[in-house]
Amino acid sequence: MKLCLKNCASVVTNSDTGPEFLYGQDIILEDDRIKQMGATGTLPYEGPILDCTGLCAIPGLVQTHIHLCQTPFRNTADDVELLDWLSAYIWPGESRLSSDELLLGARIGIAELLRGGTTTILDMATIRHTDAVFQALEESGLRAISGKCLMDDQSICPPELVEDTASALKETEELIERWHGKNGLLEVAITPRFAVSCTTDLMRECARLSEKYNLIIHTHASENKKEIELVRNKTGYGNLEYLEKIGFMGPRTCIAHCVHMEEDDWKRLKVSGSHVLHCPSSNLKLASGIAPVPRMLEEGISVSLGADGPPCNNLLDGFMEMRLAALIQKPFHGPTSMNARTVFRMATLDGARALGKDAGRIEPGRLADIALLDTGQVHNVPSAHLYSTLVYATRASDVRHVVVGGSLRLQDGRLTYGNRKAWLKEFRIAFEARP
Amino acid sequence: MKLCLKNCASVVTNSDTGPEFLYGQDIILEDDRIKQMGATGTLPYEGPILDCTGLCAIPGLVQTHIHLCQTPFRNTADDVELLDWLSAYIWPGESRLSSDELLLGARIGIAELLRGGTTTILDMATIRHTDAVFQALEESGLRAISGKCLMDDQSICPPELVEDTASALKETEELIERWHGKNGLLEVAITPRFAVSCTTDLMRECARLSEKYNLIIHTHASENKKEIELVRNKTGYGNLEYLEKIGFMGPRTCIAHCVHMEEDDWKRLKVSGSHVLHCPSSNLKLASGIAPVPRMLEEGISVSLGADGPPCNNLLDGFMEMRLAALIQKPFHGPTSMNARTVFRMATLDGARALGKDAGRIEPGRLADIALLDTGQVHNVPSAHLYSTLVYATRASDVRHVVVGGSLRLQDGRLTYGNRKAWLKEFRIAFEARP
Repeated sequence: MKLCLKNCASVVTNSDTGPEFLYGQDIILEDDRIKQMGATGTLPYEGPILDCTGLCAIPGLVQTHIHLCQTPFRNTADDVELLDWLSAYIWPGESRLSSDELLLGARIGIAELLRGGTTTILDMATIRHTDAVFQALEESGLRAISGKCLMDDQSICPPELVEDTASALKETEELIERWHGKNGLLEVAITPRFAVSCTTDLMRECARLSEKYNLIIHTHASENKKEIELVRNKTGYGNLEYLEKIGFMGPRTCIAHCVHMEEDDWKRLKVSGSHVLHCPSSNLKLASGIAPVPRMLEEGISVSLGADGPPCNNLLDGFMEMRLAALIQKPFHGPTSMNARTVFRMATLDGARALGKDAGRIEPGRLADIALLDTGQVHNVPSAHLYSTLVYATRASDVRHVVVGGSLRLQDGRLTYGNRKAWLKEFRIAFEARP
Repeated sequence: MKLCLKNCASVVTNSDTGPEFLYGQDIILEDDRIKQMGATGTLPYEGPILDCTGLCAIPGLVQTHIHLCQTPFRNTADDVELLDWLSAYIWPGESRLSSDELLLGARIGIAELLRGGTTTILDMATIRHTDAVFQALEESGLRAISGKCLMDDQSICPPELVEDTASALKETEELIERWHGKNGLLEVAITPRFAVSCTTDLMRECARLSEKYNLIIHTHASENKKEIELVRNKTGYGNLEYLEKIGFMGPRTCIAHCVHMEEDDWKRLKVSGSHVLHCPSSNLKLASGIAPVPRMLEEGISVSLGADGPPCNNLLDGFMEMRLAALIQKPFHGPTSMNARTVFRMATLDGARALGKDAGRIEPGRLADIALLDTGQVHNVPSAHLYSTLVYATRASDVRHVVVGGSLRLQDGRLTYGNRKAWLKEFRIAFEARP
């Protein structure tokens, strides 16, 4: 498998050793890697060509916290209190979805992600029908880590969305067997929803499974004050303190939100090498708060970005999350905080690192996950300052082509697989009954 | 002049007397007004037709604070301190622009506005070459109020961007003569930049001119704390207090920002009937703060939305401003604050009211300022809940057609006037020297 991205007007490399920006480049891909780069027309090459004249090549966006399974609930649960949001909309919604509906929802969500230049996600499915999500991921060619959501605390979880501990874990191991490593792009994560919905037995087993199979753990913590109170009532500890006590933290642990940090939490995250998955739109929309990301970065904590789920965003747009990650800190930390370069790397390289992927850089030898953008439109010119252009003035709709693992998954804004129109029609019939 | 918007899938009317949503409608326009609406195919009509099958019709967005003249500086002054921003980038930039460059910048900015569904703006030009901005507005058919920026305080303004009081006012009166009321879409506003840059003599004359010609006054106030301190040092009063003392406040007065309110300012705005122009992206990006809009609304103060200038946003995207206006308040005022309906009306009807325009509603007899959107895409379905869809999941790039005053200015995403490609090329050559 070969492809030449011909005549890229500019390239943002994220390189630490070479130039951060290159101009007038051909990028030659072979199998799933970047093979060679050089000034347009100077490299020997025979094979398929994608004309990238006028476009800017960037490492594909990495979104480390996504709920594809919630796509059917977009635009249906807005401007409501958080507990209502979860208990009146999201949990009942998830519990009602059939396998076919999950497949359909995941297809729509993935299409949005690829059209917006996202090439890798860490996803949290619901407790049932996780195969359907993996099926949609497989056909799309997105690089993705997903996992069956685990909820086993009978005293707290709604009866329609709870399992016994053993069968929840058994299903996770079956998913690992079926999907982990499939097509070179898919991985399974261990996915306990959050400390509130899980018994300590389950949480400990999650840590054990993660170690046994060397898998990412994906969970939520310290998203909002009521949740933290629930964890303290239940365990006697702060939220991250509890996770630390039970041996849950570590370099494979990916924790969404961390909006409300307690004093020792900085050290807990840093020392354990756990990763914070920052979701600015979701934290605003659900009134959770503003995560203290500038201090996290100062402390050397790993922070990457995600859109969370369609019902709490309501987009899955990595460009929107970059823009917000930069903007929301400035009133509190000044206009120079969270500069465009920092945020751009957070949305690409830092996400790839959190997920253990050799992506996030456009350099020979790296994974060929690349988005090609039109930065020459009336809303983003002048675009010579690339970081500013990408973070503050570029939109998902500016993405023209997307390559994942060397394979073209979006060309001229159109998916290269499946039948988007038919899926959209089916999805709207299924989920768009007039309110 | 006639046009039928045929078979709109949905219509958001903003009506106070009829239904807020209609489905399957034809909207017949005659001259610059909406003449008739009815179920598709039920109205007698002969004339040109625009097929709107599958699209959602909304009142065009009204942005009440824009600086078209700053378009050339987009993406060039980011992540810097506010005073640097103004003194090192914006003022020197404005002072250097030729008439031709202003024309070009305004053309690009206006193209972005129309492509994003904005049909009316209140704009602030720079101190020179205001004719060029009006020329670009005239050819575009955008409904617009603009004005020459006034700066006459020799002790504070940079020498390259200051005028004597009398000639500044004389030029304003000449602009009124040339442009006010032209083509039924253009108006001139009296436009003192802010209390810091203007003498009290000038500010008083502005109020007088506004009364004499019945014109809008457009200014900035209380954007950030240093500015307020400067005003207090200069005048002995708070910012809005000073404006009140000198007889500057009133129902024709439009004040951008008002981020930092003092205790009596609520009453000052409410009693005078002055209008607050809220710019959420700009207030975040320049680290000004978060304007207390929920309380403004509670107090009955008029609030509308604007993107401000390209270098402090960096877009001119009314959908982005809606989304942020809703999101940024929620961490502080809860998830039900600034609900989607409130914000949508703020971006349409409330803006139209602030500017004295009979627009912002899709009802027979109103001005025919309408945007048609595709709300059936992978990133915004399911879209049955229209306010949520429009505020949280719709992007400028979803706009397909735009009508201003009954005239089609954007069709299938393309401007119906001018030569966008040539302008873009010219603009990039002029302003995109590699950094």
